Parts: sequence; structure tokens; C-alpha cells
Amino acid sequence: AGPASASGHSCCSRNYTEVLFVLLGLSEDSCTLECALSRSRVYEAQDAHQKSMSIIFLKHTGSNVVEKINLFIHKVTAPLYPKVEENRVQTEKHLSYPFSREKQHLSVPLLSVQLLYEEWASYSIFYKYQPIGLIRKYFGEKVGLYFAWLGVYTQMLIPAAIVGVIVFLYGCATVDDNIPSMEICDERNNITMCPLCDRACSYWKLTEACGTARASHLFDNTATVFFSIFMALWATMFMEHWKRRQMRLNYIWDLTGFEDEENHPRAEYEFHVMQKNLKKEAASKVRSSQNQTLLTMMSTYSDLLLCSLQIFVTFSIVFGVVLYRISIKTALHMSSTSTFRSNVRATVKTTAAVINLIIIIIMDEIYGVVARWLTVMEVPKTDKSFEERLIFKAFILKFANAFTPIVYLAFFRGRLIGRPGNYFYVIGSYRMEECAHAGCLMELCIQLCITMLGKQLIQNNLFEIGIPKLKKLIRRRKSKRDSKQEEEFHRTLASHEKDHFLNPYVGLNPEYMEMIIQFGMVTLFVASFPLAPLFALLNNVIEIRLDAKKFVTEFRRPIGARAKDIGIWYNLLRGLSKVAVIVNAFVISFTSDFIPRLVYQYVYSPDGTLHGFVNHTLSYFNVTDFQPNTDPLDPLHLGYRVDICRFKDYRDPPWSDTPYELSREFWNILAARLAFVIVFQNVVMLMSDFVDWLIPDIPKDISVQIHKEKNLIVELFMKEEQGRRLLHKRQSNQSPQQPRSRPPSQIQTNNR
Amino acid sequence: AGPASASGHSCCSRNYTEVLFVLLGLSEDSCTLECALSRSRVYEAQDAHQKSMSIIFLKHTGSNVVEKINLFIHKVTAPLYPKVEENRVQTEKHLSYPFSREKQHLSVPLLSVQLLYEEWASYSIFYKYQPIGLIRKYFGEKVGLYFAWLGVYTQMLIPAAIVGVIVFLYGCATVDDNIPSMEICDERNNITMCPLCDRACSYWKLTEACGTARASHLFDNTATVFFSIFMALWATMFMEHWKRRQMRLNYIWDLTGFEDEENHPRAEYEFHVMQKNLKKEAASKVRSSQNQTLLTMMSTYSDLLLCSLQIFVTFSIVFGVVLYRISIKTALHMSSTSTFRSNVRATVKTTAAVINLIIIIIMDEIYGVVARWLTVMEVPKTDKSFEERLIFKAFILKFANAFTPIVYLAFFRGRLIGRPGNYFYVIGSYRMEECAHAGCLMELCIQLCITMLGKQLIQNNLFEIGIPKLKKLIRRRKSKRDSKQEEEFHRTLASHEKDHFLNPYVGLNPEYMEMIIQFGMVTLFVASFPLAPLFALLNNVIEIRLDAKKFVTEFRRPIGARAKDIGIWYNLLRGLSKVAVIVNAFVISFTSDFIPRLVYQYVYSPDGTLHGFVNHTLSYFNVTDFQPNTDPLDPLHLGYRVDICRFKDYRDPPWSDTPYELSREFWNILAARLAFVIVFQNVVMLMSDFVDWLIPDIPKDISVQIHKEKNLIVELFMKEEQGRRLLHKRQSNQSPQQPRSRPPSQIQTNNR
Repeated sequence: AGPASASGHSCCSRNYTEVLFVLLGLSEDSCTLECALSRSRVYEAQDAHQKSMSIIFLKHTGSNVVEKINLFIHKVTAPLYPKVEENRVQTEKHLSYPFSREKQHLSVPLLSVQLLYEEWASYSIFYKYQPIGLIRKYFGEKVGLYFAWLGVYTQMLIPAAIVGVIVFLYGCATVDDNIPSMEICDERNNITMCPLCDRACSYWKLTEACGTARASHLFDNTATVFFSIFMALWATMFMEHWKRRQMRLNYIWDLTGFEDEENHPRAEYEFHVMQKNLKKEAASKVRSSQNQTLLTMMSTYSDLLLCSLQIFVTFSIVFGVVLYRISIKTALHMSSTSTFRSNVRATVKTTAAVINLIIIIIMDEIYGVVARWLTVMEVPKTDKSFEERLIFKAFILKFANAFTPIVYLAFFRGRLIGRPGNYFYVIGSYRMEECAHAGCLMELCIQLCITMLGKQLIQNNLFEIGIPKLKKLIRRRKSKRDSKQEEEFHRTLASHEKDHFLNPYVGLNPEYMEMIIQFGMVTLFVASFPLAPLFALLNNVIEIRLDAKKFVTEFRRPIGARAKDIGIWYNLLRGLSKVAVIVNAFVISFTSDFIPRLVYQYVYSPDGTLHGFVNHTLSYFNVTDFQPNTDPLDPLHLGYRVDICRFKDYRDPPWSDTPYELSREFWNILAARLAFVIVFQNVVMLMSDFVDWLIPDIPKDISVQIHKEKNLIVELFMKEEQGRRLLHKRQSNQSPQQPRSRPPSQIQTNNR
Repeated sequence: AGPASASGHSCCSRNYTEVLFVLLGLSEDSCTLECALSRSRVYEAQDAHQKSMSIIFLKHTGSNVVEKINLFIHKVTAPLYPKVEENRVQTEKHLSYPFSREKQHLSVPLLSVQLLYEEWASYSIFYKYQPIGLIRKYFGEKVGLYFAWLGVYTQMLIPAAIVGVIVFLYGCATVDDNIPSMEICDERNNITMCPLCDRACSYWKLTEACGTARASHLFDNTATVFFSIFMALWATMFMEHWKRRQMRLNYIWDLTGFEDEENHPRAEYEFHVMQKNLKKEAASKVRSSQNQTLLTMMSTYSDLLLCSLQIFVTFSIVFGVVLYRISIKTALHMSSTSTFRSNVRATVKTTAAVINLIIIIIMDEIYGVVARWLTVMEVPKTDKSFEERLIFKAFILKFANAFTPIVYLAFFRGRLIGRPGNYFYVIGSYRMEECAHAGCLMELCIQLCITMLGKQLIQNNLFEIGIPKLKKLIRRRKSKRDSKQEEEFHRTLASHEKDHFLNPYVGLNPEYMEMIIQFGMVTLFVASFPLAPLFALLNNVIEIRLDAKKFVTEFRRPIGARAKDIGIWYNLLRGLSKVAVIVNAFVISFTSDFIPRLVYQYVYSPDGTLHGFVNHTLSYFNVTDFQPNTDPLDPLHLGYRVDICRFKDYRDPPWSDTPYELSREFWNILAARLAFVIVFQNVVMLMSDFVDWLIPDIPKDISVQIHKEKNLIVELFMKEEQGRRLLHKRQSNQSPQQPRSRPPSQIQTNNR
């Protein structure tokens, strides 16, 4: 009778069938497990020679120093932890969580909300860790996992932001030593460029592009390549880190044995199936069943078609913006005075980016509705598959929406323009856009910057704060009470009754979606914009507290939902970080001038430096080769007659055998670019796989702990069973006439 | 008392603590589980409204046709199954496997061996499935898994071999319509080629390469590209298929809960640690501890160095063979008569390949020893890590050994040769080898063919049959009995005593290694040799029975070892199939003429056909540009004076501004080749990922079954527990003075 009485918890009265249920993950009651463990600990103390312990001891020899370091780290980071006695909450989880979900939902004291409000939903404590245990206790595992994930993501952004800033600073520091931009800015070079548009524009001096060239260097230098490799590995590290954190939370929250079992079909699905069957019966009398199959197939593929249509719409919009930019630029060139003309470029760029942004935000909302509508049409079988399909569709649409303009800028802008004398025209007489001299990278940067800042600012402020506040206001208006009466009334209400006056909970999907689009910005185009992680970090620090406020004060308390992981979002993240490798490879090799510079330096340069690089990148054009009515109206704009102008491309000069053909250098550099893509992709993939393999998915201490607990429980069962048998034997000796279905079996003597 | 008595197995007397152990994978006794399940089936029958069943029913509506098809398939394939009542063995596994591993080892009847010999280890039944259940029963799970894996691999090779043969036949059928080889064979073209070696060789006519060109077409045509894509997907399908098969075997063999727990350190490791500690103590008195750390680090990295050294040795050997080939070729050219000269190429190729093969086989044995020695030096902690490290090292060395000559042929041969007038020389005056006109693909084919056939024939016949037989003979000689006496003696022996006279069991690693090298041949260079899967299939059909014979008759019966999977071999296979994608991409784009043909057809061809392709691939050389003493001794060999000869490369002609520079076409085609690699790699990787995602890792029926069993066991426990409590309550009413540690808890009323 010794061991059981050693632990005095009231919940230890449960017997081991319940323990089994906990073990199998079929019961929510974790008290019994705790009890079993605390009992086992008694055994453990008694049994000094225990084998499993000796193994652990073997491993922990010399960990004294490690322990001291851990203690020191803990002391230093102590102010970063929220003051909610998190540790107590986490270790005594089983004791403080004895009721079933529904009961607990009502019985949570107001203190928790107050504590959450003070220690979580406040901007003043932005530097602290989140009280994840408390969040989970109040909102359930699903919401807890979201905030844990957001926390890990934000935390991981810190090193990325620091390295990004260093890369940017490196660019700033070396801008004056950069030979290509020095050459562009050098007045003595006196390079006359071909006009940027037909008729209205005239020849211009390369020195005009000086500012852009210097700015481009900030984002396009050698450090950028290392930064993209770093960010690819960072993405892998982030995924691994999250997997470990999730595993740890699963262990602490007692979800290791939990399985998602909600496979019952949705009511809508059952209704749909019933209706289809009815229709089928009706149809079988009239038509052949083949027609029916055809119809079913058609309805299945219709959403694929609709999705494509939507993406096509996005493309058209981007193309529309491009057209706007071209036409405005031409119009401005036409009418402007010369002082105004210098500001033309900046104006066009900025207005176009802003228009783009506004369209993106509006389309985002529309696409959300479209995705939901498509998924409803599809009638998925279970709630889980409904949610997954909805997320996937919304992700595809919103992703295409957010990234099409960026992809256009990175890979298509300035590539399909043709050449002087033979430009490529779209819709009548619009010439395709050219890039500024130093590549399109600068414009890509501006676009990314505006999209990230603008989208986040507008969505955060307008959609996430403004609109809910507005809704609340309207809701209050409707209830038609004056404020005093209301306050009075409110005071009399219980916490959950007050809850009713808040907005309904809309789920975590919009939050995840926002974050995953941001993750895409941070990883996909990081080669062109090293400050992206910093922007993301700043946004997320606010975002966490904003979401916290929203969850605590704006929304009704959600029904606690269990979840073991973040579901489909993890797969989307993983997919993104894979795509990021190839996208970055292409950005470095095709959008930036990295490869041409390298090739020039090692192949064409007479002295092994970049001197002469700018001249090398410019081809010659004989102005007599202009097509009729495309030559500039004001050829003497620069004050002298121009015979040969230059343009940025690798083409044979007019005096060669093959004038204006793509030159040997062009193919040479193209081969180098492609070779770089192959090498970069494979090296980074290999390194990512290596990092993935290096970091174990389950933290060492957790796996040891799980193993130990398993052993202890088995031991406990053995002892209990032995005791029970002894008892049973004695009883059956006392009362042999007792009816028993099981024949008495021999007593096990397996003391370890 | 109803349910328990319904199932009459004797083993059902066990109680549910044991069932729990089985559930946790901690006990090997599966009888109890079977018992529990059979009991549950009674409940199941009683409970017609059971929820889980209803779900399954919902899914299986209309599966009547499927069942019929399955029955039909089973009938058709019935002769393919071995006559061992496999099904009985597998379904009644629990009943026929009641003893612990060790006991069963002795008690297996001789009948099993006889049956295995008849129904498995015989060449005459090569077309049948293997009796995996029986193999596992006799040899243990580890060996069972090997043969199951070999079976799946061989089975999967059938479609690959069929498609490979079709691709080859397509090549045969189109050889006469192939414009490039027609042009090469056309006497009217009258193209004079530059000499293939200095001084001794003279000019030659392109028509001499006619045969090689025609043969090359067999392996280098459009179908090859599709075949490599097919094989990349095949590899993914194979991995997925194996995962599913493994899962199914795990379920049937009752290993789902089994975990590898042998983490106790090896004796050698403990000795090493002890010695090191002693040394450390001694050293701490004399030297600083920093030196010690340095020494430890040095010893850790020494094996890395040794491995590199070994790979370097392999490279040197390959280079040596190349040198042999060059020198022999030159010597033969020098001395031979003109009739003999035509056979020179074939002779050199074949002898070189044979020499290569012999060296590979010898080095293979040496590398095996080296890998073991390195691993022993390393002193890994556990047996498992010892084996994994050994396998990994042996794999790296043997893989480098087998594939270096092939990689040289595929990617380096004929690339670093320079050009006429400026050849690249190695070690004094040896010119690097050129390829025959139609690419090196043909030679790669010959090398692969000889390596695969030769290695397998020699290793199979000599090492796997010959040497064990020899060893047995020597062993018998040693025992110094004449044959009659021996026979008499043998008759008196028990099965396990006879076993002693056989060779000791050497583990599965050599078998796996052989197969994985073969898998590498089949997947890595399949683009250059579509018959590889056929060769592999033919070899494996024999290999299975050969290994079977070896295991049944040559080796002592191994101690049965449990294993859940094939361990590190799976990772190696996975790595290989990933590497295969990129290697095939490079073989298609760089080794074959696929891309140049495509580029010519769509860019340079005047009429969009391949007419003129051969002329396009040949550059011009002015014979006056030969370096002194490298021009042919016999310039009039062809009967006329040669001013301009041709060579295979894309270089500017002597009369251009930049004579003999790599031409625009060269860079153009290089860019196309690289672009193809990027597209091919990413498309195939995407498709593989898609296939991977499409096929679930656990077969549907198995996962449903596991889920059902879990539910049933829980239900059983609930009922039993309820009965026990009722009983206990009644007892405690009868005898309240009974000492009990647990307070009586309320009765659960959770009937579902």
C-alpha cells in the first residue's frame, strides 16, 4: 500500500484504464497521467540502479558547466519573460487543467483575461516573450500554436534583419569605391544614349543615370549573393526550429498521442450527396449515365478554370498598370518643360507603385470571397478538407495577386523591348518599358518597399484596427442604448455575456495568410531587397501585440479547438522556401548585374578590374537606322548632332558583318548566368538538406523524457498489476465460490 | 462473462497488462493482441451500429465490382504465388509464433527449410513471388525485409525494362531515317577530318565514322529524353511503393509499435573511453589540455583525410587507364598495318574497359577492408552507429570506385582536348583523348554494358558462388573425415548441428551494397543506356534465387534480428534518386547531341530540318597552322593534298577576324544546354514531389485497419474494466475490511 499513498493528489483515485486512454491520446484527462508519473517518481527514487537513469547519467557527465551557462542565460533573459509565472503554469499544467474543455471555458477566472491584457496585449512589452501557456489555456491549442509560430518567426527574423542591415550598410560603405557607378557618373566619359521613347524623347547623357546607378549599388553588390544563400539556409533553420518548438509544445500540452479524428462528413456534403442521388435516380430514367459522369467531371474542373481566370485577371491588371506607366511617361515627356522632366521618372514610378498597391489590396478582398465561393461550390466532404481547400485556393490567388507585379519587374521588365530601330510594340504604338541603366533592381526595390510597408500599414491600420472598431460602433448603435445605461448594464453582466457584444471570431486564416505572404516577400526576393527582413520584423513586433489586443478585446472568445500542428500552413511555408531558392538564383543571375560584372572582370577586362565595364555593356546604334517616324523630334537637344548613340544590350555594332545581332558576349554571359543558376540552386539545396539532416526534429531532452515516461508507466503498471493479482489471489482463497470469467493466471515475477 | 468465453484460444488467459505491453511495442508476445482482437470481433458482430464500421461501409458502397476484379486478378496471378500457404502463415502469424525468438529458433521444424529450399531457393521458380512470410519466420525480420525489398525492386524493374527496350527498339527502327548519320555515311559529302593524334595519324574521311554514328543513334534519340524523365519518376514511384510495402509488412509482422532500443555502448567504445580517460589523467600532469583537444580533433578528421586519399587513388587509377588508352592507341597507330588499323579503336575500347573492370573489382575488395578499418579506428559508440558509419564509408568509396570511369567518360572525355594546332597535352606529349564523331555516348554505353554485365557475372559467379564453395571445401578438408563416414555422421546430427559446418553468416551489407550500386547504374546514367533496367532485371531474377540458395544452404542460419525498416539504405537510395535527376539532365544536355540538334533545327537550319547539321558541327582548320612536329607524317594518306581539314567543335574559321576562337554558336548552344538542365531538373523534381505527395505512405486499408484495432482495443478495455469494477464492488460489499490502497472510485458509464 506504499507507493500509491505517497502522492497525495485527489485525482490519483483514477485507475489505470484512464491512464491507458491518456496514453492512447483518446482521453483529454491528463490528470491521471500526472498522477501516474508522480507515483512513478517515488519508485524511481527507490530504485537507484535503474538502467534508463544510468544511461542518462552517462550522457550528462560534465554538464555542470552547461547547467551553469543555462542558469546564467536564464538570469540575463529573465526580464524578457512575461510575469505570469509561466513556468508554474506549464509544469503544473495537469493540475490546473482538470476539467473538460467545455467546463473550463466557463470557469476560467477573469484574472486570466486581465493578465493576458496586461502581460500580452500591450505594446509597451513588445520585447518580451509571449505567455504561450496562458494563451493556450484561455483560447485553446489552435490559437496558442498560431501565436507560438508567430513568436518563433519574429524571433528568427532578428538575425536575418541584422545580417540584412549589415549587407545594406556594406553597400552604403562601398558605394564610392564602385567602379561602374563611378564610370557612369564621370562627365569625361561623355556617352550619348539613344532616346527612351519614340519621337518625344531625345538623346540623353549617361551621367543623368548617375543617381540611380549609385542607389542600385546599395542593393546589388557581392554581399547580396551571400545574403541570399544565408536567407535560404535561414528559411530551413526556421522550419526546423519551428518543428522542434512544435514538438516541445506538443509534449508540454500533452498532445503527443492526440490524433485528429474529426472525419465525420459535413452536413452540406451529405445534403449534396443525397441530392445527387435523387437527381441520378431521376436522370437514369431520362438520360444515359455517361452524360451524368461528364457533367460531374465538368463541375469538378470548373473551379480550376475559374482559378486560372482569376490569375489571368491579375495578369491583365498588371499589364494595365504597365500600360498606364508607359502612356503617362510618354504624355509627360511630350508636354513637360525641361525642369519638370527630371522628376518624370520618380513621379511615374511612385504613382504606378501606389496604384498597384491599391489594386492589390482591393483584389485581395475580392479573391478571398472568390476562394470561399469556389470551395463552397466544390462541397468538400469534411470540415478539415473544406478548410484546407479554402486555404489552398485563397493562397494561390492572393499569392499571384501580391507577386505578379514583382515578378514582372524582376524578370520581364526591360527584357522584351527589342532594340533601337526595331523596338517591340504592344497595342498600337506603345513601346515596352526599358529599365534605368543600372538594371531593374532599383525599381524592384521600390516596389517591394511600397508593397511591404503599404500593405502592412494599410491592412494593419485600416482593416485590422479601423474596420473592427467601426463594426463594433455600428453594433452598439443598433442596440440603441445610451452610454450610461449601457455601462450600468455592462457592469451587471458576466464575462461571457459581455463577450456576446463583441465581433464574432473569424478564425486564424487571415492572420496566417498575411504572415505567409510576408514570408514570401522576405525569402523570395531577398536578393533584391536585403532590408525586407527588417521591415518584416518591425511589422511583426507590432502585429503580435495588435493581434493580441484583437483577440482579447475585439473578438468574442473562440471555442477552444485542439490542434497538434499548424496544418497546411507548414506545407505552404515549406513549398515557399523551396521556391525561394530558385527565385533567388534567377534574381541574382538575371535581374542584378552580378554575373555580367564577374564575366567582364575575368574574361574581357584588359587589367582584371571593372574599368571599362560600362562601355562594355553598351552597344552602338547608327541613328540613320531609325525606322521612319521614330527618330527624335528634337535631335539637337544635347546641343550637338548625334551620329552614333548607345543602348544597353550586347549586340554587334552597325559596322560588323551582322549588325545588331546578339553578340558573342551576349551568349557568353547568358551561359554564365544559367550556369550560376544551376550551381546556386544545387549548392543551396544541398546545404539546406544538410542543415535539415543536422538538426533533429525532436529536441533531445524531449525525446529522452518521452522515452523515460513510457518506461516508468510500464513499470508502474507492472507493480500495480502484481499487487492486484496478489490481492485477487488472497480474495479468491477467501471466497472461491466467487464467479469469475477469467481463469486465474500465474503471477509475474518481473521485478527489474 | 460472455465475451471472454466466446473465443477459445488458450493464450487468451493473459490479462490486459500484457496487452498494454504489446500495444506499447515493449513485449514481443503478440498472442495476447490476437486474442484481444478476436474477442473484439465478437463485440463487433454484436454491435451492428458501430460508427467506425458505418464510415467504412459508406466508403465501400459499390465496391462490388472492385472486389470482383480483385478476385479475377488473384485467380490470374495465382500460379505466381509460392505454394507455402503464405496466406495462412500470414493471417495466423500470431498463433504460429507464440514462443520468444530464441525458443522458436530451435523449434522450427525441418519442414520449413525443405519448403524454403523447394519454394524459394530454386531457379526453376524464378517467375514466382517469394514466400516472404516463411523467410521471415526462418531468418528473422531483417533478412525478410531484405528479400522483400529485393522483390519489390525486381518487380519494379519490369516496367522500366519494358519501356527501356521499347526506347531501344525505337532507336533501331529510326536509324535509317536519321539525317545526321545519313549525312556522315554519305560518300558524296567528302569531308576530310583532322588527324586524331600527332605525327602517326593522318587525315581521315568522315565516312569512316559511319558505323559509330549509326550505333550512337540507337542510344541517342528523342525517346531517350522521355525515358530519363520516366526513370526519374520511376525511382520516386519505387521509393513510394517500397514505403507502402514496408508499412504493410510492419503491420503484418506486428512491428508497428516496435522501436529500436539497442543504445547500449559497444565494449570497444567503453574500453576506448576508459583508456582515453586514463591518458587524459596522465597527460594533464605533463601537457596542457589544449594540446589534448587538438589531438582529439586531429584523430577525428583523420578519417576524412583518408577517405579523400582513397578517392584520390581512384581518380589516379582512372587517369592511369586513360593514359594506357592514349599510349596504346598511339603505339598501335604507329606500328600497325592499314588493315589492322581499322580494328584499333574497338580493340583499345574493349581492353581498356576490361582493365577498368578488373581494377574496379579488385579495388572494391580493398575499399571494403579500408572502410571497416576506418570505422574501427573511429570507435563509434553503439553497434547501430558502427554499422551505419561502416555502410556510409563503404558506400562512398565503392560508389566512387564504380562511377569514376563512367563519369569521366560522360562528362570529361573529349572536352579538354584543345583544338588542332593547339592541343592540350598531359605528362610530356600525350594528347588527351577525343571522342568519336557522334559523341562519347557510344563509349559510355560500352563501358556501362561491360561494367554491369562483367561486374555482376564475375561477382555473382566468382565471389558469391565460387568462393563460398571453395571455403566450404577447405572447411571440410580441415575436418579430416572421409565422405562416407561424414555422411553417416551427418545423418545423426540435428539441423542446428549441421548448421555449424557451414560458413558463418556475414550480414546483409554486401548484398545491399551490390544492389544499390546497380540501382545507381540504372538511374544515374539511364539517359545514355536505356537497356540498363533490362540487364538489371535479368541479373536480379537470378540474384534472388542465388541469394536464397546461399542463405539456405551455404551460410549458417543467422540469429534472427528484428528491424522495422532497411535503415540507412533507404536514405542512400533516396539520395541516389535525387542525384540521378541532375546527372541525367547533364547527360542529356552535355553528353548527347540532343540540344545541338534542337538548336540547329530551330535556329540555324535554313529549311527547319536536320539537313546540314553535320557540316554545322564541324569547324575548319588550316593545315599550315599545325605546330611544328605535330603535322601528320603521311599527309598524302588519303591520296590527295589537304589544305583545310575539319574537326568537331564550334570555333571560328581560320579566315575570320578571330580565328579558332569559340564561336557565337558555341555559346548559343552552351546557353541552350544549361537552360535545358535547369528546366529538366526543376520539372522532374516538381513531378517527383507531386508523385510523392499523390501516393500516401501508408496503404489505405492498413491505416483503416490500425485505426479500427485501436478503437476495438479501447472498447474491450472499457468493457473489461467495467466488469472488473462491478465485481470489485460486489467483493468490497462482501468484505469491507479488505485492506486497499486505492479509494473506491465511481463507476464509469461510458457505453458507446
